[in-house]
Amino acid sequence: MKEADALARRVAEAMLAREGTGPTWRIEIEEAREGYARVRMRVRADMLNGHAIAHGGMIFALADTAFAYACNSRDENTVAQQASIAFLAPAHLGETLVAEAQESARTGKSGAYRVSVRTDAGRAIAEFTGLSRAVGGSVLDRN
Amino acid sequence: MKEADALARRVAEAMLAREGTGPTWRIEIEEAREGYARVRMRVRADMLNGHAIAHGGMIFALADTAFAYACNSRDENTVAQQASIAFLAPAHLGETLVAEAQESARTGKSGAYRVSVRTDAGRAIAEFTGLSRAVGGSVLDRN
Amino acid sequence: MKEADALARRVAEAMLAREGTGPTWRIEIEEAREGYARVRMRVRADMLNGHAIAHGGMIFALADTAFAYACNSRDENTVAQQASIAFLAPAHLGETLVAEAQESARTGKSGAYRVSVRTDAGRAIAEFTGLSRAVGGSVLDRN
Amino acid sequence: MKEADALARRVAEAMLAREGTGPTWRIEIEEAREGYARVRMRVRADMLNGHAIAHGGMIFALADTAFAYACNSRDENTVAQQASIAFLAPAHLGETLVAEAQESARTGKSGAYRVSVRTDAGRAIAEFTGLSRAVGGSVLDRN
Repeated sequence: MKEADALARRVAEAMLAREGTGPTWRIEIEEAREGYARVRMRVRADMLNGHAIAHGGMIFALADTAFAYACNSRDENTVAQQASIAFLAPAHLGETLVAEAQESARTGKSGAYRVSVRTDAGRAIAEFTGLSRAVGGSVLDRN
Repeated sequence: MKEADALARRVAEAMLAREGTGPTWRIEIEEAREGYARVRMRVRADMLNGHAIAHGGMIFALADTAFAYACNSRDENTVAQQASIAFLAPAHLGETLVAEAQESARTGKSGAYRVSVRTDAGRAIAEFTGLSRAVGGSVLDRN
Repeated sequence: MKEADALARRVAEAMLAREGTGPTWRIEIEEAREGYARVRMRVRADMLNGHAIAHGGMIFALADTAFAYACNSRDENTVAQQASIAFLAPAHLGETLVAEAQESARTGKSGAYRVSVRTDAGRAIAEFTGLSRAVGGSVLDRN
Repeated sequence: MKEADALARRVAEAMLAREGTGPTWRIEIEEAREGYARVRMRVRADMLNGHAIAHGGMIFALADTAFAYACNSRDENTVAQQASIAFLAPAHLGETLVAEAQESARTGKSGAYRVSVRTDAGRAIAEFTGLSRAVGGSVLDRN
């Protein structure tokens, strides 16, 4: 494994261990490498909206989590500035969603990331785009 | 109270009662009327990200909830097609966030909604824009 | 007139005079004040797309112009970082479009702006949201 | 060449020939196939904003043009519902910009498209995401 990819994995695991949301939502990291992360989450009853489908907020949250791991992958503290999401199809109770984040471009302190959310059977659920900003400092050394 | 506003209130309460997320996140409806909703939520430890601030997904989820109540306010089933959010400042553990959704425009089956997220002290946290699509059927009669 | 509003007007006029696009598109400034701008443009044949309606790029460009004047209104050089637009209805040849930009929030160097695009008869065409970043320096003194 | 790709090329050329904007902006089609389009445009003086860099509206317009060709590539009339753009770096007078649109997902009448805008030397300028909606009818048979 490339050193940069091993670092990305450590950062993602540290973030997941530290955050309140990941364990609550049972986020699992499938893969994390430089500028890339793929995570999964199962849709539970407490994630459904008033139409009995997965709440848009939870689909966004999963995508945003993958985005966060990808944009922090070089162990430089980086935050989301902006994100956009298109909801393509509803997700249902019990389905497992996979969010795959890929870096599109970085310029200066800004970065653009594309995240696809699909069911683990490959059905398209949402497309997310995130704009990040590096704010300085290490993720791993922040204890 | 106008009849349209009373209907909007009933729809919002029915949606909140029915959804898995609202009670989990302790969403409270402050106001709901035709094309408008204002909801609040307190930032808990299980809503924090790896940087120890409110997870962008939870800020989005709160805004998206207000958006959902506003765009369903005429008791016609309506879903989110797309949403964008700009994160303006971090929110911290224990802060109460207020999301205020206002209809900007409706044309045919589409609607555009603006949602501001602020702390209850008025500090700007995020600006959200949602695009909705009416899909037919009543929210209240779907039991 | 408040001094801040007079400054905003001078900035908007300086920007319009200096830019290549404004005169090409025949942009007219209706109003410019602190954190606010309203501009108009008539839809010409060279602004139509392959469906014979106003090109989304031109509707965006008009909204973006209003956004630029509003976010530079304090005479501090400010650029667009991100923007989102929902297209609500087509605009036709000969119609005059009015874009009205209003500041929603500012925090640090970032600002969020809402822009509505309507025909001069008030028909909703698009809703735009822009995220700006101040980069330092004066607009007026940059000659 | 696959038949679907040949159709996409004919649609893109018909749209370019028919639209007011493409010839005005001197858009050139580099490639058009099913769910994909790549177009180019040179930044002219009449495309610069008040900061003397390419107007965000023109960068958006180029991306939106590639998006339009990609989402109409199956010769079914399709319009933009929503689009988001992140501006990563300024583009300068005389630079040639290339917008590459790729379909990410289609579900029912909706489609999501990713567009990257780069200089022809490969420098990242902007990332665009578009959400389309098929409205029925043929592009080619609409004469």
